[in-house]
Amino acid sequence: MQLTLIGIGTGNPEHLTLQAIRAINAQDMILIPRKGAGKADLAELRRAICDEVLTNPTTRIVEFDLPVRDEATPDYRQRVDDWHDAIALAWVNAMGGTPVGKVALLVWGDPSLYDSTLRIAARLDPAPQIEVIPGITSLQALTAAHAIPINDIGAPFVVTTGRRLRDGGWPVGVDTLAIMLDGACAFQTLPPEGVHIWWGGYVGMKEQITCEGPLAEVSARIIQMRAEARESHGWIMDIYILRKV
Amino acid sequence: MQLTLIGIGTGNPEHLTLQAIRAINAQDMILIPRKGAGKADLAELRRAICDEVLTNPTTRIVEFDLPVRDEATPDYRQRVDDWHDAIALAWVNAMGGTPVGKVALLVWGDPSLYDSTLRIAARLDPAPQIEVIPGITSLQALTAAHAIPINDIGAPFVVTTGRRLRDGGWPVGVDTLAIMLDGACAFQTLPPEGVHIWWGGYVGMKEQITCEGPLAEVSARIIQMRAEARESHGWIMDIYILRKV
Ligand SMILES: C[S@@+](CC[C@H](N)C(=O)[O-])C[C@H]1O[C@@H](n2cnc3c(N)ncnc32)[C@H](O)[C@@H]1O
Ligand SMILES: C[S@@+](CC[C@H](N)C(=O)[O-])C[C@H]1O[C@@H](n2cnc3c(N)ncnc32)[C@H](O)[C@@H]1O
Repeated sequence: MQLTLIGIGTGNPEHLTLQAIRAINAQDMILIPRKGAGKADLAELRRAICDEVLTNPTTRIVEFDLPVRDEATPDYRQRVDDWHDAIALAWVNAMGGTPVGKVALLVWGDPSLYDSTLRIAARLDPAPQIEVIPGITSLQALTAAHAIPINDIGAPFVVTTGRRLRDGGWPVGVDTLAIMLDGACAFQTLPPEGVHIWWGGYVGMKEQITCEGPLAEVSARIIQMRAEARESHGWIMDIYILRKV
Repeated sequence: MQLTLIGIGTGNPEHLTLQAIRAINAQDMILIPRKGAGKADLAELRRAICDEVLTNPTTRIVEFDLPVRDEATPDYRQRVDDWHDAIALAWVNAMGGTPVGKVALLVWGDPSLYDSTLRIAARLDPAPQIEVIPGITSLQALTAAHAIPINDIGAPFVVTTGRRLRDGGWPVGVDTLAIMLDGACAFQTLPPEGVHIWWGGYVGMKEQITCEGPLAEVSARIIQMRAEARESHGWIMDIYILRKV
């Protein structure tokens, strides 16, 4: 069995690469997870992408219910591990028990960046041959929306999570941070002086909203924009860059 | 005038997104730099991309000679600044002196990542309206080639240059590094114990070569592969991820 993880970009169907379109059409089966309410738009997007670019009549699209995490498991790592086990099992069931041929999953953004699909795939036994098709990340959709470089000339940057920023503060030795997976506006826990923020919600999507400026000036506005957008859409994904200036 | 920077990916023509193809076809003019010998393949690739996807008969392709850096200027920052000034001037000349309409540049990888095009564009006067189309980066082409995630679960990573790694050593507080712009295999300046490397040259291109393993075991092999490939192609671009394991 060959398993292909196809990066599809971050919600703009035009983020698809020619390589992704070719890969979609090379499959025997494409697995699409059905998630709970709120994230429904994302399963919808995967279906719309297949409707748009799939021309191979022999490719089957198979939907499956994505297991939910068992919030009763106290240990975070254990909770995630169990969940990944359950997802691997759901894939196998969706494939009809005996995986053969070429099967693909459409991965949000790029499969390398804060995504578990590769780790779940590693649980399959026998191990499939794995192929990865890169996709546009939310970080690139953010820098494109603001028309900014991520790095200063020859300078490094850190990509990290909201949780790490809140718990660990600004990492030493670097002036630029990209923050993902932040459900709680961790930027508000920093001393804002001398920091510029470029923020975006739903980047690359038609719902895209952005805000940028000195953190001290725009922090409150971003918190409000985020809350209002989340309220009206029922969900939000957001990402931002912080730079000491 | 509108200036569009179109990310084209890292050498695989199929890295092009649908958005990039649409943007290429929306231009009055596409500027293609002619570089010196050795990098000729890259100008060739831009021309091949236009040949392949450009269907708008009114889009003009204009080539220009990329100025060379004046290595006599002692200060590095000054040298780069002067060079960027010269490139901006070369653009204006190529546009015929009076920039109007929609003009695009095809940017290697993604325009946000260790690329100067946005900084050069900032020198144009009057300032054009700038649009950025994201592209697949060499970092994503590398992780795809190795079928690996860049980050551990919820963990941060640093993206930096060979020069920084050599001069500053392993950054504190982080277990994963992505190294770009390294002309001299800076990984060999690190104590190799407990470090794994995933290396790639020409990632995404038909010339792609990769190597991975414990740094202590594969360091010498990578240095040799790199030297041989550079010798036979006349140029090389390489990138790698280091992880403490
Ligand atoms: C589980 S990670 C997946 C990242 C994805 N693999 C990528 O390449 O962008 C989810 C996080 O990515 C970011 N993200 C993904 N899509 C986004 C979008 N369209 N707008 C803003 N942030 C997004 C948010 O920070 C979100 O918390
Ligand atoms: C000036 S930077 C441009 C990066 C580009 N904007 C991107 O998004 O990948 C050039 C560096 O990118 C990396 N690079 C670009 N293309 C590459 C390729 N096809 N294979 C390996 N490394 C590449 C190398 O580290 C090289 O030194």
